[in-house]
Amino acid sequence: MKTAIVLLSGGLDSATTLAVARDEDFDVVALSFRYGQRHALEIDAARAIARHFGVREHRVVDIDLRAFGGSALTDDIPVPKDRPLETGPEIPITYVPARNTIFLAFALAVAEVSSARDIFIGVNAVDYSGYPDCRPQYIAAFEQLAALATRAAVEGRPTRIRAPLIALPKHEIVALGLRLGVPFGLTRSCYDPDPAGRACGRCDSCRIRLAAFQTLGRPDPASYADR
Amino acid sequence: MKTAIVLLSGGLDSATTLAVARDEDFDVVALSFRYGQRHALEIDAARAIARHFGVREHRVVDIDLRAFGGSALTDDIPVPKDRPLETGPEIPITYVPARNTIFLAFALAVAEVSSARDIFIGVNAVDYSGYPDCRPQYIAAFEQLAALATRAAVEGRPTRIRAPLIALPKHEIVALGLRLGVPFGLTRSCYDPDPAGRACGRCDSCRIRLAAFQTLGRPDPASYADR
Repeated sequence: MKTAIVLLSGGLDSATTLAVARDEDFDVVALSFRYGQRHALEIDAARAIARHFGVREHRVVDIDLRAFGGSALTDDIPVPKDRPLETGPEIPITYVPARNTIFLAFALAVAEVSSARDIFIGVNAVDYSGYPDCRPQYIAAFEQLAALATRAAVEGRPTRIRAPLIALPKHEIVALGLRLGVPFGLTRSCYDPDPAGRACGRCDSCRIRLAAFQTLGRPDPASYADR
Repeated sequence: MKTAIVLLSGGLDSATTLAVARDEDFDVVALSFRYGQRHALEIDAARAIARHFGVREHRVVDIDLRAFGGSALTDDIPVPKDRPLETGPEIPITYVPARNTIFLAFALAVAEVSSARDIFIGVNAVDYSGYPDCRPQYIAAFEQLAALATRAAVEGRPTRIRAPLIALPKHEIVALGLRLGVPFGLTRSCYDPDPAGRACGRCDSCRIRLAAFQTLGRPDPASYADR
């Protein structure tokens, strides 16, 4: 059976990406990263989503943030709320420098030990157009690197980097996920959930998500604090 | 002052690479990785070498190996000794899949937060020609990726990947290091040091190193168990 590595954050995009990989009959090794306390809820969500889709294995990797010094990540920065989305999304609160490069590098290592030929990543160039490492040309460059980086590649089995959501607006991602049975009630998008884990409904991420469900005329099954 | 990130393992090659960066007047952030118990001595060596060269900062990152499952790294494999070098070096005991990709990904992140434009890595395509990720084309591909991966790159400040030793045979690396004042007595190359930290003198790495010093007619100041 063909194996794929799927980067799984617990959010809506990566859950839909996992659904695409399973729909293509891949045996999946899901890979999540924990790089701060904020992420405990997301890892729980990733676990539940991985279980839902019957992945072969779910690996959770701790990323050591001391390397990055006094990054915003370790500080307690307020999450912007209720601001106009047309100003463009800012760097999310969970920003890590060179994040996708680090994630894909680990995925490449796991692909090598798992004999996987495909790595799926839920990047999207529409809602996060300001991100260098969410663009198609970045993904193509990583695939080029991967073709030179591993023993498998040199022996004629290069790794493909699959980004099935890269060109989709959020409502089309949600539509795709609904079609593929993504348990959206389990996915977490909020940058600032309350202690019970309910989404705020007011940060950029919540608002983009809610607008997508609204466009489709479907309810968002996630738990929101004020609904 | 211009800043560089230097990947520093505590071995002979990375110490010489650090010397090259300091010789070019870079303010250096040294970056080391700890990914197993075997590496405690190497980290100590890296610290001493970093101090010797007056780096601005030395960051040590823990790499979580659980991601790689039952890799050889966590097992207790015997280190080959006294075998003919012309059979070509095998995968060192410290092999991590996609290792240089992971190291360079972290270096790229540290470069971003340190406003560094240059990353130095001591890879060498002569003694380790079997390694896909030590070849010039791999380094070029990572530089290409880096040019697309970060905000700084998009704003016209791409990161250079410098591999000054890539084409040098080991004795030329040692000669360069001697010229630049590398404290070779502090560097560690052995795959199987004794409990006191002395090199075995018989593994591939020790023998390549000893042969290089011998070619130059210079003594190796490192501590060996049987000398």
